[in-house]
Amino acid sequence: MSLSTLHEHLAARLGPKGWSTDPEVLAPMLAEWRGRWHGTTPFLAMPATTAEAQAVVQLCAAAGAAITPQGGNTGLVGGQIPDGEILVSLKRMNRIRSIDPIDDALTAEAGAVLAAVQDAAAGADRLFPLSLGSQGSATIGGLISTNAGGVHVVRYGMMRDLVLGLEVVLPSGEIWNGLKALRKDNTGYDLKQMFIGAEGTLGLVTAATLKLFPRPSEHVVAMAGFMDAERWLDLLHLIKSRTGALAAFEVMNRLSVDLAVAHIEGVRDPFMLAPSWVALIECESAGGGHGLESAVEEALAEALEAGIIVDAAVARSEAQAAAYWRLRESIPAAHKRTGRPQMSFDIATPVSAAPRFVAIADAATAALLPGARSVAFGHAGDGNIHYTVMAPAETSPEAFAAALPAIVAAVQGEAMNLNGSISAEHGVGVARRDELPAYKSPIALAMMKTVKAALDPQRIMNPRAMLQP
Amino acid sequence: MSLSTLHEHLAARLGPKGWSTDPEVLAPMLAEWRGRWHGTTPFLAMPATTAEAQAVVQLCAAAGAAITPQGGNTGLVGGQIPDGEILVSLKRMNRIRSIDPIDDALTAEAGAVLAAVQDAAAGADRLFPLSLGSQGSATIGGLISTNAGGVHVVRYGMMRDLVLGLEVVLPSGEIWNGLKALRKDNTGYDLKQMFIGAEGTLGLVTAATLKLFPRPSEHVVAMAGFMDAERWLDLLHLIKSRTGALAAFEVMNRLSVDLAVAHIEGVRDPFMLAPSWVALIECESAGGGHGLESAVEEALAEALEAGIIVDAAVARSEAQAAAYWRLRESIPAAHKRTGRPQMSFDIATPVSAAPRFVAIADAATAALLPGARSVAFGHAGDGNIHYTVMAPAETSPEAFAAALPAIVAAVQGEAMNLNGSISAEHGVGVARRDELPAYKSPIALAMMKTVKAALDPQRIMNPRAMLQP
Repeated sequence: MSLSTLHEHLAARLGPKGWSTDPEVLAPMLAEWRGRWHGTTPFLAMPATTAEAQAVVQLCAAAGAAITPQGGNTGLVGGQIPDGEILVSLKRMNRIRSIDPIDDALTAEAGAVLAAVQDAAAGADRLFPLSLGSQGSATIGGLISTNAGGVHVVRYGMMRDLVLGLEVVLPSGEIWNGLKALRKDNTGYDLKQMFIGAEGTLGLVTAATLKLFPRPSEHVVAMAGFMDAERWLDLLHLIKSRTGALAAFEVMNRLSVDLAVAHIEGVRDPFMLAPSWVALIECESAGGGHGLESAVEEALAEALEAGIIVDAAVARSEAQAAAYWRLRESIPAAHKRTGRPQMSFDIATPVSAAPRFVAIADAATAALLPGARSVAFGHAGDGNIHYTVMAPAETSPEAFAAALPAIVAAVQGEAMNLNGSISAEHGVGVARRDELPAYKSPIALAMMKTVKAALDPQRIMNPRAMLQP
Repeated sequence: MSLSTLHEHLAARLGPKGWSTDPEVLAPMLAEWRGRWHGTTPFLAMPATTAEAQAVVQLCAAAGAAITPQGGNTGLVGGQIPDGEILVSLKRMNRIRSIDPIDDALTAEAGAVLAAVQDAAAGADRLFPLSLGSQGSATIGGLISTNAGGVHVVRYGMMRDLVLGLEVVLPSGEIWNGLKALRKDNTGYDLKQMFIGAEGTLGLVTAATLKLFPRPSEHVVAMAGFMDAERWLDLLHLIKSRTGALAAFEVMNRLSVDLAVAHIEGVRDPFMLAPSWVALIECESAGGGHGLESAVEEALAEALEAGIIVDAAVARSEAQAAAYWRLRESIPAAHKRTGRPQMSFDIATPVSAAPRFVAIADAATAALLPGARSVAFGHAGDGNIHYTVMAPAETSPEAFAAALPAIVAAVQGEAMNLNGSISAEHGVGVARRDELPAYKSPIALAMMKTVKAALDPQRIMNPRAMLQP
């Protein structure tokens, strides 16, 4: 089938609303939101149903034409930006198909936006706990394909842990209906696991059955300041063991806080003492009236007395809790607004090694680029610190670029020395594809390639993402 | 390589403690513990290290000799019993390699017994929550390979949810070292998922890094009686939402309780009213002093007032809590001691459909075999009711055997009509392998076969389990 014939067939099958080649329609889908990747596509397909998505894959498979799937286009590693492939946007498949509160299950189509799923769950007096900055535009299909994380992983796990079942159009064009609300099913390999975090390389996720949880009735947000990164491990353990209700444990180094206060309107530092580190703690419980607030207060008092922290504050209102969260959530925008040359990493280490990682990476970076400092913040409860190297004020973009390869090798190398990962939650995409062989065992890479070749022998599903051809 | 040469090479590599062909040594490993399967093997390999396990697989792969892996030999579907294959027992690989309380992680070898892992975690003031009847002999490798469940799934998930990393000898004889304590790692496909629940068909699991949790400081066990199976859904929701701390929610029908009381010494019915159903509720919290006991009491009082339950009792001592659990745990032995012809199923349905499943299955069974009754008990919080059809007293084993195919088809068919599963937690093994095609979609089965063929092209890993050749 020639490509023009393929496009005709696709257009005929999808109807006028279901496709486009109009540059104006395509433009926002071809640019990564931070402007780091710009792509091209000969054809945008926008299926509205699973049957239409199936037809797209069948026609592309018959023509040997590759596909790049896209959800909300919020990905950070370029996996959603086509480079000549057919672009398949799942955005029209955005229905919540069902909510079953007794089963604590919700079935949504791939294009449903995370915030809409959270709202639908709340409307049924349930919680869908995945929570991250882009929740107003990120879609369920993309969140599944990148195994998204966010701020509640310490309690509820990553997207992988929140999926009960999947519906997938396979590279062969067959539909695998693995949607189910079962909590237990040991009838063979757990096939859904292959597609979660596969970045669209093994099939097109079209719908998912997700786990819901009781809505928390008690909710406590607090902040604590401390002077030494290692202390957050003590604080984390104390809060976990004293409350049994930890839902988020985020940390921010001094520079993170200072930049947020300086660059984002209305953000305030909660502490007079300017502690080297600030932790944001969220605890929640579905059982009301058990005194969670006092439990958090007592744990913080204990931490103060033990010298783990130097100051603490518990939010007394929803507004105050929101203000605490706003400090944390302003950091990514704040460090970009400095305009300074900078490089962000997506490091994870074991929880216990994360403070050491920051110290070692800071030292290594300063040795390579004197005066460089780090914005270090994020998910300390999971060992996932967002680490950004900021150039000193006097460093030109060119000088920074020259120093960068050594900095990247040092920072990522230190993470690996600590048995960590160079991609904690953002994935591989095209951004980290070519460096993966340096960080992953050849045996693991070979297994990935074996699985890819077995399930997508034509290599039509997102062929440039994750694995080198 | 001839088989006798293979055996010589294996014996030379493993040393005198590492192998046997002595029928007395082999006998207990060749019989399934209930006597349902009896196997044969020309050679028992007992590697003591990962390197020895690798050598076994390499030598078998070179000789084209198939392997059946075995852990504690507690499996219920015959997957661990060889039929002419080389039997590889992991029992000598039973070390706890490390415990990292700050990372809430423990690394154990495949042959470590579950109870030993629980004890090691407790020794570090942590909880490893997997809990099931055979925990004194079941091993970590077997529990991973069968994705074991048990009584705490409602809170902590199945074995799959408790694994952070794996070490596996691949069918090629390579070692994949995927041991890690990371909570987040999105550098490619999550390869460990393929081996969890794969029943040894894709590789030999030799070690695992497992998740630990804070040890509960409050612990409440209660019982409630009710007259109608549907009410357990109301009770489940009430306990979940009022306490936020549900750790186990088990139910038992009248016959289950009566048989346990009749056949197991020291077991007592907690209620005078002889309710149709009894629920066993366990709540736990890591945060002490939050009044969990009062929260459970209040929820039960609310359930009584709302007419959901007819009676309730909260254990006032560890001894009483143990007595409540003993009633629940005596049921499997009790219904076997009746000596009556019987057939046990491993059904799951969505949580909401489980009471309906019992009612429909009871009706269908009674229509096929008048007077038949069911022992129905188990994990209602997960929709996983252990359902056993008991023949009426006057039915001969022959008459029961004659009625059985229709009963199996009806019971499993009803489960499937309710979007359930015929293997909730015991797996496929050889017991359910040949019926799997009737219950699983051809597309799912084909994908399983594709994965098996890609990762074990020689088909040497547990070749009779799960998938028909």
